Amino acid sequence: MRYVIYLLILVYEVQCIPRNKNSVSVKGNVSNIDKCTNVLPEDLKEEIAEYQDIVNEILQYVIEGDFKGKTYDELAKFVDMFGPRPAGSEVLEDSIDYMIKLTNTQKLYDVVTEEVTVPQWKRGKEKIVMYEPRHKIIPVLGLGGSICTPPEGITAEVVVVKSFKDLENLKKHDVLGKILVFNSKFTAYDETVVYRYDAASRAAEKGAVAALIRSITPFSINSLHTGMMSYRENITNVPAAAITIEDAELLKRIYDRGVKIVLNIQMQSTRDTKISRNTLVDYKGIQNPEKLVIVSGHIDSWDIGQGAMDDGGGLFISWAVPVILRRLHLLPKRTIRSIFWTAEELGLIGAFAYEERHRNQSDNINFIMESDEGTFAPLGLSVAGNQEARCIIAEILKLFKSINASTLIEDDNPGSDITVIVKNGVPGASFYNANDRYFWYHHSESDTMTVQDSHVMDLGSAFWTAAAYIIADISVDIPR
Amino acid sequence: MRYVIYLLILVYEVQCIPRNKNSVSVKGNVSNIDKCTNVLPEDLKEEIAEYQDIVNEILQYVIEGDFKGKTYDELAKFVDMFGPRPAGSEVLEDSIDYMIKLTNTQKLYDVVTEEVTVPQWKRGKEKIVMYEPRHKIIPVLGLGGSICTPPEGITAEVVVVKSFKDLENLKKHDVLGKILVFNSKFTAYDETVVYRYDAASRAAEKGAVAALIRSITPFSINSLHTGMMSYRENITNVPAAAITIEDAELLKRIYDRGVKIVLNIQMQSTRDTKISRNTLVDYKGIQNPEKLVIVSGHIDSWDIGQGAMDDGGGLFISWAVPVILRRLHLLPKRTIRSIFWTAEELGLIGAFAYEERHRNQSDNINFIMESDEGTFAPLGLSVAGNQEARCIIAEILKLFKSINASTLIEDDNPGSDITVIVKNGVPGASFYNANDRYFWYHHSESDTMTVQDSHVMDLGSAFWTAAAYIIADISVDIPR
Repeated sequence: MRYVIYLLILVYEVQCIPRNKNSVSVKGNVSNIDKCTNVLPEDLKEEIAEYQDIVNEILQYVIEGDFKGKTYDELAKFVDMFGPRPAGSEVLEDSIDYMIKLTNTQKLYDVVTEEVTVPQWKRGKEKIVMYEPRHKIIPVLGLGGSICTPPEGITAEVVVVKSFKDLENLKKHDVLGKILVFNSKFTAYDETVVYRYDAASRAAEKGAVAALIRSITPFSINSLHTGMMSYRENITNVPAAAITIEDAELLKRIYDRGVKIVLNIQMQSTRDTKISRNTLVDYKGIQNPEKLVIVSGHIDSWDIGQGAMDDGGGLFISWAVPVILRRLHLLPKRTIRSIFWTAEELGLIGAFAYEERHRNQSDNINFIMESDEGTFAPLGLSVAGNQEARCIIAEILKLFKSINASTLIEDDNPGSDITVIVKNGVPGASFYNANDRYFWYHHSESDTMTVQDSHVMDLGSAFWTAAAYIIADISVDIPR
Repeated sequence: MRYVIYLLILVYEVQCIPRNKNSVSVKGNVSNIDKCTNVLPEDLKEEIAEYQDIVNEILQYVIEGDFKGKTYDELAKFVDMFGPRPAGSEVLEDSIDYMIKLTNTQKLYDVVTEEVTVPQWKRGKEKIVMYEPRHKIIPVLGLGGSICTPPEGITAEVVVVKSFKDLENLKKHDVLGKILVFNSKFTAYDETVVYRYDAASRAAEKGAVAALIRSITPFSINSLHTGMMSYRENITNVPAAAITIEDAELLKRIYDRGVKIVLNIQMQSTRDTKISRNTLVDYKGIQNPEKLVIVSGHIDSWDIGQGAMDDGGGLFISWAVPVILRRLHLLPKRTIRSIFWTAEELGLIGAFAYEERHRNQSDNINFIMESDEGTFAPLGLSVAGNQEARCIIAEILKLFKSINASTLIEDDNPGSDITVIVKNGVPGASFYNANDRYFWYHHSESDTMTVQDSHVMDLGSAFWTAAAYIIADISVDIPR
């Protein structure tokens, strides 16, 4: 938990670094059903139970009916056409325009975009060559935000540690002028990702000239995983990059034998500031249109792979919500707003901008949902909110027993973008799904359509749509 | 089975292409214990049972005693020092010299090498760029033996098929001048590897200018897998390379939408002929030194990764056999010969040379063993031989119940190199082990020490050593 607290400080107080994906797999506790005994009035339970027919209608339409395969197919067309969509790129803006048009083809015209100033970090040439003890090209992927090396690269001896604690035990002259390799084994994302954020500063503090981290993943087939890093104030900035588990272990073995290792690291990148956009699709409520139930995913991705999982899947099941409801002529009391966040990967930039712009309307957010931890088989929701709020959601989740998606996880900090809003006390949830292999693909070249499954995406769209609809339609607001 | 027959023809009659690794996982049938009832005389069974103490002594020494961790550590030092060891390279010859010295340090001096003329296929620059419908670099790994493209590459439109049968249904003018992509899903290695061998000729037959295959693996994290390919006589030679499952599926999706795909493929390579060596380490029998029990693995590897699995593991558990026996002062009646084959990957070149050179002594081979399908947890042996031979081995395997390695697989064609000798009627076996994920790493950059486990390698060395010792020491020859 120390790491989580540390990270939260980084996120909200120091540098606005994303705490994205730190709740994948069960972070909170599975809710004990007994906690809800006598919390909800019987008539509310009965009211919720009456939505079973609508849930079944949505499931049928999406899984076996006219919408079957649509989420997967539209996502595939989208990611195949645009590929990766890094913040600040033209391709991201083109993909936003495409999503607006695609939404319009579904006869949904209540679409607005809100401009957001976003940072751009553009990867250039990256290469590591091992000079000693033998020549070897070491595949490398720079961490987002890293500075460049000089054009000729940095050539230095290597020191390998397994943890920050290991590093503390080294004397400064052991590290001075060297390349520090952190061979930190993946335990949980929360715990291990601190090496991605902080390795550069920790290494520089000890006088190292560059930091290499073992890719943040529990499993590798020579895979490279990038992601955002950060520099602490008043500490020299040094380049930081990821290498594979295989190469981190190779360097560790050689180092442990007392054999001298010399690497040359070359990394180039450029920085800029650009204008991007959050996209808001409103499906107006017929009774309280000012009250919002938000579903969301982010449209930007890292600059490799296709961003089909992170977060193409979340984007498209959120896109599907108003599309499916309109096709089925289901009109909720409150407005359902589908948001396609921009620039999540570089620090929840779109979400921060939205929160600032709409702060005075935040009382109107009845519930906020986000899918940014995979769209594998749905299991339920990870929910932030008071006990009564959680019990209402738990009661709604009972309607998804037929697809085994009735689990409620108690999580005070669900999601990534929505943490910016949930921290203000707005109740919300992230999509709890069977994402055991999520980090095998996360922020890597393998984040492609190959990880998605058409039927499973149908389950996700149906679940997401039905859950949002019920929350937007029941007689009570989600309490705070 | 049609494919297996087809492959066997390729192997033995037409072009001497390796049939390597086509028996990974259970190819044959698990032997029914009832088959051995009344086959062996009781006194032979009793004699074999008496080896239990020696088996236990070897297991104890290797798993918990002074040899604990030695196989893994020596393999790690070896592959970390040399990296990939392709046939024809200087590094392969250096690694052979190293193995001789390493063997000598174990007070084993009966080591000879036998020269073998080997082909060399040296990979040059390889690159694929998708020009249409959008710019994308497509990672590529040329197949061993492929010809080059012109320096500027081949630029052509793409046709995607899923099988040779699919291709047959296309008209020649649909394929003429195009790049043919085989998006063939992995079923079993035997069945799917035909696309690696034969895609180029099948494509050229229809007028295609290059062939790309989906990497031969059941699972991918954007992984590329190479391996040997072949050209049929009287058909134009065209370049052939592997792409990832992810990219093969991407191309298929785009193609299925009717969208034009244009690729530029650049592939360079050089060919030569070099001298390499098989290495023979003899641990002399004290009663019938002319009779041989052979244990073996190959020392060469593909030109990527470390060749730690294919076949560093098999090499080192075979190296360990005489080392362990000498240390334990166990002296078998027959000679145990440990062979480090050369140039397996380019067509069992070392094994063919050995067979030719020693053909007139082949009656002296009592049993031949090979490990070239992984050194994961030992399960038993895949055995070729007559019923009596198999029953003797089955009786010996009973002694390995404590490590769950008592399974006998009936396999008329075990191993890769040893098939060259087993086809002459010599009884033999390959190492049956828990290699379910073997093809995840096979012939790829991820064939590194990361797939190996120190304790599991101890189990393998102990099993391999004890099995070879008993076969070399029992009172009866393995019958033919």
